Amino acid sequence: MNLSDMNIAVVGSGAVGGYYGGMLAHAGCKVRFLMRADLAAVRERGLTIHTHGETVEVPRVDAFGTTAEIGPVDLVIIALKTTANAALEELLPPLLGEKTALLTLQNGLGNEEFLAERWGGERVMGALCFVCLNRTAPGVIDHFDAGSISVGEFRRPASPRVQAVVDAFGRAGIESRAVENLVTERWRKLLWNIPFNGLSIAAHGATVADVLADDGLRKVARDLMDEALDAARRLGHEIPDAFADHQIDRSYSMKRYKPSSMIDWQEGRPVEVEAIWGEPWRQGVAAGATMPRLEMLYRILQQATKGRHA
Amino acid sequence: MNLSDMNIAVVGSGAVGGYYGGMLAHAGCKVRFLMRADLAAVRERGLTIHTHGETVEVPRVDAFGTTAEIGPVDLVIIALKTTANAALEELLPPLLGEKTALLTLQNGLGNEEFLAERWGGERVMGALCFVCLNRTAPGVIDHFDAGSISVGEFRRPASPRVQAVVDAFGRAGIESRAVENLVTERWRKLLWNIPFNGLSIAAHGATVADVLADDGLRKVARDLMDEALDAARRLGHEIPDAFADHQIDRSYSMKRYKPSSMIDWQEGRPVEVEAIWGEPWRQGVAAGATMPRLEMLYRILQQATKGRHA
Repeated sequence: MNLSDMNIAVVGSGAVGGYYGGMLAHAGCKVRFLMRADLAAVRERGLTIHTHGETVEVPRVDAFGTTAEIGPVDLVIIALKTTANAALEELLPPLLGEKTALLTLQNGLGNEEFLAERWGGERVMGALCFVCLNRTAPGVIDHFDAGSISVGEFRRPASPRVQAVVDAFGRAGIESRAVENLVTERWRKLLWNIPFNGLSIAAHGATVADVLADDGLRKVARDLMDEALDAARRLGHEIPDAFADHQIDRSYSMKRYKPSSMIDWQEGRPVEVEAIWGEPWRQGVAAGATMPRLEMLYRILQQATKGRHA
Repeated sequence: MNLSDMNIAVVGSGAVGGYYGGMLAHAGCKVRFLMRADLAAVRERGLTIHTHGETVEVPRVDAFGTTAEIGPVDLVIIALKTTANAALEELLPPLLGEKTALLTLQNGLGNEEFLAERWGGERVMGALCFVCLNRTAPGVIDHFDAGSISVGEFRRPASPRVQAVVDAFGRAGIESRAVENLVTERWRKLLWNIPFNGLSIAAHGATVADVLADDGLRKVARDLMDEALDAARRLGHEIPDAFADHQIDRSYSMKRYKPSSMIDWQEGRPVEVEAIWGEPWRQGVAAGATMPRLEMLYRILQQATKGRHA
């Protein structure tokens, strides 16, 4: 499998899809984008990515308004918000050939399962994106920090096709690596997202610096990590205590960073409550974990974001 | 002790002080009010209380801008927000004669202790107000629901002076009763205020009906009650489980009622975070209780209301 010979579709071309898909296109991959709001602008002016002080221009972009126009591809990169997953039921079928692979770049837990249940687990890969992006105008993406991607198979060790995806991202200038256990990596990322994204909304706009500066709130953040850590271990993921400590320590350098969920919340957009809090809580409880803080945070966030539609 | 012969001062003449003090004045008690924002209006037009479809006018009100002008009295009724307690250090001394009694109508835990530490426990009484009030204009108070008051001594059984206060409120048309253990009553009230006032802010404006309508959030409210119940019992207060159940059941009739803390929060005023969440959490933890939900709620509310000054 070599991505430069393959047809790739990107479904969900917001900041994440536009950035990772745009960088692949810029490196010569054949990428077709499903777009809604930005379709006309991107057809006219292409994609512009501001990254590390440089500007990457992708002047000619294959952008489409429906997946029927795109047709079957070898790889579908899914970058929709998880709150819009129901839309995939109609969006994906036109893209699927017999061997089409699915790669979800989405946040939290439950997305690989969603795809596997509908279109077969053997198609499914997943990736974690560690990246700070902003879509600043139609077709214009600001990439202002990090950017690495970790790619793995669904419930299997990394495979040659995972390595092909990793290589393609690498050639596109994106730090990338294959992971042997995708779900373990998802739990490691959740250890940070659960407290920092969640408390930022519940405490009405608390930045990372706010949480860390308040002894009481920092302890609550660490307690939430411990609940997630216990759940992850019961589910078979070996994550050491030191990793949780490191998640707190490394956060000091983020200063007044606003977690992505807080920005979603402030801008009136749907928040990925089920993927980041609901599903980890349900899975942890099913494995026998006691998670009173996560349960309360989940219920608070559900209520606070009610009525926001994808 | 007969309140109709006594000089009474009301410190903190917002809705609570204006209502209870105004009703006593209307019934013939000699009440002097410390006022700030409403001073000029009340000197000119008196107090107006809309209650149960009637209007109670108190045309001539003794209102003062400083406690030095009021001078020593027999009874001080304290109705300041607990977030302004520090101001009492300067406000109270001019009102104190050798036997001046202090009656705090304030919310939550720690207020009697605050007074006792500074001016002696033998002066201190406390009361719980079950009342829905709104100050709608300077000197104008809307009394739209309930109104009863429960009065007790600080760390002693009810005394003759408690009965005198109860009788005076009764003659003023306010349902009142003496309680043998004031702190037990405070915990019983907190069982409701901790979850419903707290979740209303953390979940960004959840009314009583919102909390009850969501199975998950209602369970969290009940779990918070159980934490408070365990703390109260460890501190020697006998409150049955059935009382907590009743607090949920009776809440259905409140419908879309906004807890007072939610209104404070929405109007940018200080929220009584320490009295309602901080002090109960500290006392419960000191008694050996495990209160992860209350701790998290307290820390979230502290952060959410930071920078609001009394």
